[in-house]
Amino acid sequence: MIEKVIEHIEDNKDQFIDRLKEFLRVPCISTDPTKKAEMTAGAKWVQDAFTAGNFEHDLVDTPGHASVLADGGAAGDGKTLLVYGHYDVQPTGDESLWDSPAFEPTIRDGILYARGAADDKGQVLTHMLAAESWKKIASKLPTRIKFLIEGEEEIGSPNLEGVIRGHADRLACDYVVLSDTPKFDATTPAITYGTKGMIYKEIIVTGPKQNLHSGSFGGTLTNPGNALAAIVASLRDSDNRVTISGYYDDVVELTAEERANIGSLPFDEPGYLDTMGAPSLDGEKGYGTLERKWARPTLDVNGLLGGFVGEGASTVIPAKVMAKVSMRIVPNQDPDKISKAFDEAVRRAAPKGVRVEILEHARCGAYVCPLDSPGIKAAADAMESGFGKAPLFIREGGSLPILPLFKEVLGADSIMMGFCDPNCNAHGPNEFFAIDDFINGIKAAAHFMYRMGKAG
Amino acid sequence: MIEKVIEHIEDNKDQFIDRLKEFLRVPCISTDPTKKAEMTAGAKWVQDAFTAGNFEHDLVDTPGHASVLADGGAAGDGKTLLVYGHYDVQPTGDESLWDSPAFEPTIRDGILYARGAADDKGQVLTHMLAAESWKKIASKLPTRIKFLIEGEEEIGSPNLEGVIRGHADRLACDYVVLSDTPKFDATTPAITYGTKGMIYKEIIVTGPKQNLHSGSFGGTLTNPGNALAAIVASLRDSDNRVTISGYYDDVVELTAEERANIGSLPFDEPGYLDTMGAPSLDGEKGYGTLERKWARPTLDVNGLLGGFVGEGASTVIPAKVMAKVSMRIVPNQDPDKISKAFDEAVRRAAPKGVRVEILEHARCGAYVCPLDSPGIKAAADAMESGFGKAPLFIREGGSLPILPLFKEVLGADSIMMGFCDPNCNAHGPNEFFAIDDFINGIKAAAHFMYRMGKAG
Repeated sequence: MIEKVIEHIEDNKDQFIDRLKEFLRVPCISTDPTKKAEMTAGAKWVQDAFTAGNFEHDLVDTPGHASVLADGGAAGDGKTLLVYGHYDVQPTGDESLWDSPAFEPTIRDGILYARGAADDKGQVLTHMLAAESWKKIASKLPTRIKFLIEGEEEIGSPNLEGVIRGHADRLACDYVVLSDTPKFDATTPAITYGTKGMIYKEIIVTGPKQNLHSGSFGGTLTNPGNALAAIVASLRDSDNRVTISGYYDDVVELTAEERANIGSLPFDEPGYLDTMGAPSLDGEKGYGTLERKWARPTLDVNGLLGGFVGEGASTVIPAKVMAKVSMRIVPNQDPDKISKAFDEAVRRAAPKGVRVEILEHARCGAYVCPLDSPGIKAAADAMESGFGKAPLFIREGGSLPILPLFKEVLGADSIMMGFCDPNCNAHGPNEFFAIDDFINGIKAAAHFMYRMGKAG
Repeated sequence: MIEKVIEHIEDNKDQFIDRLKEFLRVPCISTDPTKKAEMTAGAKWVQDAFTAGNFEHDLVDTPGHASVLADGGAAGDGKTLLVYGHYDVQPTGDESLWDSPAFEPTIRDGILYARGAADDKGQVLTHMLAAESWKKIASKLPTRIKFLIEGEEEIGSPNLEGVIRGHADRLACDYVVLSDTPKFDATTPAITYGTKGMIYKEIIVTGPKQNLHSGSFGGTLTNPGNALAAIVASLRDSDNRVTISGYYDDVVELTAEERANIGSLPFDEPGYLDTMGAPSLDGEKGYGTLERKWARPTLDVNGLLGGFVGEGASTVIPAKVMAKVSMRIVPNQDPDKISKAFDEAVRRAAPKGVRVEILEHARCGAYVCPLDSPGIKAAADAMESGFGKAPLFIREGGSLPILPLFKEVLGADSIMMGFCDPNCNAHGPNEFFAIDDFINGIKAAAHFMYRMGKAG
């Protein structure tokens, strides 16, 4: 039956492309408060697609933009999949930088250009069209498939946790599937099997009640600027290891298999360095670049401010200085424990004579899907079938707070199937999705559903 | 003869106060480019006063505001004094904070309020009027007295070095005398016998060519923010000692006599702490508050900037961060040597993977007048005669680049006689000079001239 579904997909290419174009014409910019009607139209487009695909569906309102929930209904005793995606898109930015208008999807040389083409309308639609194709050709799905398509991903999903917790029963599944990450490179699909967590802090150090003259007062009190430098510097050692007590206690070391896999990836390190423009690569001693990027916890200064910052010289002892410092944590590190240990380390490092306040702006856990998970293996096979090339297994240094949330609330692992080019300009001008990747993505999704149906 | 001069001063109080008021009505704000005419009027007022006092004088033009040079002529074989002062004043700031207009001198309860009352018109005028009184009563000065009164002190004296070097012969003297520092407290005059030098640096650390996503890139390159914190923190140890190689090599330790003197001063440490509003006092281990403030070299952060400094969280690795860092150095530390050692320490502390640039915004040496200098002793006696109370010997944590310049170019030590209240609001609203301090200052200056005449 899978062959017929693939045939159907092949035969309906043009229709599928037209439908993606239609979806892309709706300017669902969630960050823009004037686009409320367009957001509603975007959610409606998603619902109409589910109607066309013969899915039960409804809209879950939130204080912000609504989510669409859909369910293909009971289908044998295979694994239940929950496809997560989002219908909102980034703003266009400077429209003059676009070669064709952001909301007028245009194909040039087999590439479809439009805001949302890859992130995430095009990618999530692959799963919707695969499911629709199954229903059409086989009259039923090979396994149970649900959808959760939200409208607030680009503004940090402020209401998604409520939606998931509030509809946990309806969303129950064996695996969450999402296509919101890229391929490894232009020609190689990828499965992202891990993301880092993040704890974002702001350290505020205050001393005197106002800026003081550094001549008249220097040497008699603790300078908050020197204190802050000492605090921040104390958090890492010269091997770039984080010195916070217990920081590495729960870190699961990379397995020999993972290190071998990472070492075997065709990673263009000189190209990577060149993209950044830094003098050299560096980081925690004993680990390679991709290992550090994907699997080692970090601690980075994100911002520094205090005292006199204009041109030239002003001899002040600053009354107040601040540093924004964030940690990317890895699977098995407990965000709450690390957050507390950070605060303790900062207070311990603070010299006498200053006050230290610590704010927290974000806290979420890391996520990793075991590489020996049957779902991951099935996804890899499905992608090889869809793309004609086996995917690479990669991780991601960024954070996706929903993944640990799905694990916690639904008990389900998440599988990230990357169909789009890593340089697809997801948040920039001329965002694109190659037509071949779109169609191969639909096929890969169809194959995955098929395999999950046999995995009961 | 000194008794008659003092009598004359006493008899001419009202006239002297009126002349000070007249001087104060000229709004000589050197920072304000629209006040060019007023600056010229200020210089002319000074010249007219010298004409009245029967002094040779002329105007030395500079690319900025002119200096007035005056000379009372040969007078016996005593010590030649050069009185340094300035006729320019600070801006008024928010005029609504003044209880009476800044340029309408007003006396309330024996206190004269006006911009420049203390800093420096009132204080420099004491010496001018003392010299005039001598000429009037004794028909000649007791010793040779010269004046250098500039108009750019409040903008950092950008042209003063040129004036001094260009007129070194005319300015030749045994001692420079200046009254541009305060008393110890409201009731006790003070001689400031030392100032710190200053080296002001800006450390700029750059890494990637633009801000990077801390998730996608964190751990793979050196974060300039972390690097800067490490560099700045490395410059001091936990005892608040500066770790720059050789930093203390040339520092002359306080003598037992100086420590005893400093220890005996009626310093209100709780009041000092309260004024600052810091949680506690702290600084280099092994030294008291006033010792650190006046005689120990320091290293202070003056400003920090880089990366994301808005509200909340933005996960960037900053491409560029900077710290302004200044050192207050003490007598015998060589500014050039310390400047170089600082740069070397910064470069040595810089981790791999970033570029470090160091700018220098200021460099000047410290100054100290030996406490056993005959000039200092004569000045102390003169102040005791003028104020009826012996002055205290204090130092200053701030920097006066002209003092080492006078020493270098003229070979002369500088004696700083402080007549005004330390809380006289020199740069704030309601600047004041107590009438008694003004008159006692004239008397002290007259006594000092007398003693210098006998010190041939």
